[in-house]
Amino acid sequence: MEAYWNNIRKVVPYTPGEQPKEKNVIKLNTNENPYPPSPKVMDSVKEIDRLRMYPDPAAFELVTGIADYKGLSSDQVFVGVGSDDVLAMCFLTFFNGSLPIFFPDITYSFYDVWADLFRIPYECQPLREDFTIDPTDYKKPNGGVIFPNPNAPTGVDMGLLDIEEIIKANQDVIVIVDEAYVDFGAVSAQCLLDRYKNVLIVQTFSKSRSMAGMRIGYAMGDKKLIKALNDVKYSFNSYTMNQPSIVMGKASILDEEYFQKTRKEIMDTREWFKEEMKKLSFLFPDSKANFIFASHPKISAKEIFEAAKKENIYVRYFNKPRIDNYLRITIGTRAEMETFLSFLKTFIDGKMQK
Amino acid sequence: MEAYWNNIRKVVPYTPGEQPKEKNVIKLNTNENPYPPSPKVMDSVKEIDRLRMYPDPAAFELVTGIADYKGLSSDQVFVGVGSDDVLAMCFLTFFNGSLPIFFPDITYSFYDVWADLFRIPYECQPLREDFTIDPTDYKKPNGGVIFPNPNAPTGVDMGLLDIEEIIKANQDVIVIVDEAYVDFGAVSAQCLLDRYKNVLIVQTFSKSRSMAGMRIGYAMGDKKLIKALNDVKYSFNSYTMNQPSIVMGKASILDEEYFQKTRKEIMDTREWFKEEMKKLSFLFPDSKANFIFASHPKISAKEIFEAAKKENIYVRYFNKPRIDNYLRITIGTRAEMETFLSFLKTFIDGKMQK
Repeated sequence: MEAYWNNIRKVVPYTPGEQPKEKNVIKLNTNENPYPPSPKVMDSVKEIDRLRMYPDPAAFELVTGIADYKGLSSDQVFVGVGSDDVLAMCFLTFFNGSLPIFFPDITYSFYDVWADLFRIPYECQPLREDFTIDPTDYKKPNGGVIFPNPNAPTGVDMGLLDIEEIIKANQDVIVIVDEAYVDFGAVSAQCLLDRYKNVLIVQTFSKSRSMAGMRIGYAMGDKKLIKALNDVKYSFNSYTMNQPSIVMGKASILDEEYFQKTRKEIMDTREWFKEEMKKLSFLFPDSKANFIFASHPKISAKEIFEAAKKENIYVRYFNKPRIDNYLRITIGTRAEMETFLSFLKTFIDGKMQK
Repeated sequence: MEAYWNNIRKVVPYTPGEQPKEKNVIKLNTNENPYPPSPKVMDSVKEIDRLRMYPDPAAFELVTGIADYKGLSSDQVFVGVGSDDVLAMCFLTFFNGSLPIFFPDITYSFYDVWADLFRIPYECQPLREDFTIDPTDYKKPNGGVIFPNPNAPTGVDMGLLDIEEIIKANQDVIVIVDEAYVDFGAVSAQCLLDRYKNVLIVQTFSKSRSMAGMRIGYAMGDKKLIKALNDVKYSFNSYTMNQPSIVMGKASILDEEYFQKTRKEIMDTREWFKEEMKKLSFLFPDSKANFIFASHPKISAKEIFEAAKKENIYVRYFNKPRIDNYLRITIGTRAEMETFLSFLKTFIDGKMQK
């Protein structure tokens, strides 16, 4: 091995869900929104100009759009290339202590990847048997706390009182609430920002705003924390948001009616889908996200996953302790879910008859 | 100060050039291209679709477009959100040794910012009096080498023999040649990639392809190094390139005729501008970039910088040792340079008469 390999950072990268290239696929594996973004987003493409020039490094138009929408001032909002970029910057900026940071054992599988990348010590806190977070676990000394609400891949949400209990016990470190899925029925912790200066709320345009292809995420918090984040961002890449993101992101924020309509449609489909899944004997925690996390008492998740794939239906399967018998199924359109259900019925009937 | 500040990363961020909001400005301060991107880039906007879905994490269309254009295989190309993103990833991936990395004392002012961000030790090697790099300086033990060719903000290029001399002496570490400005007349070190497996060449769409607003940069090198870079990228943010970057970047690569025409136009303007600047007694090293780095024997750079700004002409001034009497002037259109020259003539005449 050549000598220079000694200085190369060794990592075990995050594995994103499959992005099959075929078009005739029912894709319920990466929690994408089944509806296109607001038509005003595509209209705004015409406003993309002066590409020869650097974009505004502060992405002011987009930041202000989000801040106004959320009732914050623009120095309380930080934007990045998807919430993954925002979270990576948060880990790099805020988690530099010697004590381990805490997050749930079953959660977004990028947290331990970032911790490893930046050599941050961490300790996973086990979810209860019913997949809820126990706030008591977060009352030991630590270097920071992060959890999603609702949690992924379980879809289980946490109430404001429990969240506040965790924050209250951790005022000496930064607490990040990762709200990627919050728009599908959970309550945002944004209302706690006034009282707790050590809290960051992270949200994204990828799910409820149907803009995964644009890569826009943001953090909200005390202006001093946002300044610290921006300092690190300006030390990494001054211009993270390209011109289309700024223009099209702002257009999305301005179309409130479309946003409300499509997120309600997904929640309605989810609630109907839950009932149908119960009829097929599936078990799942009650989800407040745009997916459900389901297990069948008689047939293994892996088997269903593989059989569905053969029918060009993609769901997500995690080969990991505690969750290796669950499928994470994104809520698509009603028609897509009907196709999936009819596949399930046939498949389960076939198995039962054997 | 609250306890959590102890764990926050302290940095001194890079300061990008001013981006004035007014439109009637002659902007020669951030090395942008005065011409718009190929019309085919704006045509390709129509192909932006399925924004609700994640982009291809490997940005395969764009990577293959670049690889084909450069005569490489696609596993030899890494893409990022501008060459700043690519270089930040390179620092994080390759510079993890205990010995200092080397770069010139006068160079792109982001190098020391990245080194500080990631706590990488570094040692600057002084340019010669004429602003050329002395390869001998790079023959001491080090943890890696990076230099731009042509160098910024001087515009001075280095010949292939000198570059190879540096690489030859540093086969135990990674050597990065930052070729942001190479398309304006210097020779690329790409031809050395076959012989040296420890070399990365970094280029960008921001200058010669008029796409600063899109944030597209790339690295070329041995497939093992590209794999190491991708592993770190997938540990940071799986989807760095949004859908418009992939689509519009590819469209730019395919319009070779436009690329050749506009870069030649800039080089022609630069050569004419050099002659005009000589007539005004300016001194400058011979530039192979889309800017010149000029000093006047009688009038201070700072004074000219401030007076130009009052006339809505922005150039770049660095208040730093050795270069605080120089202006970095981007090559704009012929008309813009004529306006700037006529301002200079008037200003210099006025000063001389006093």
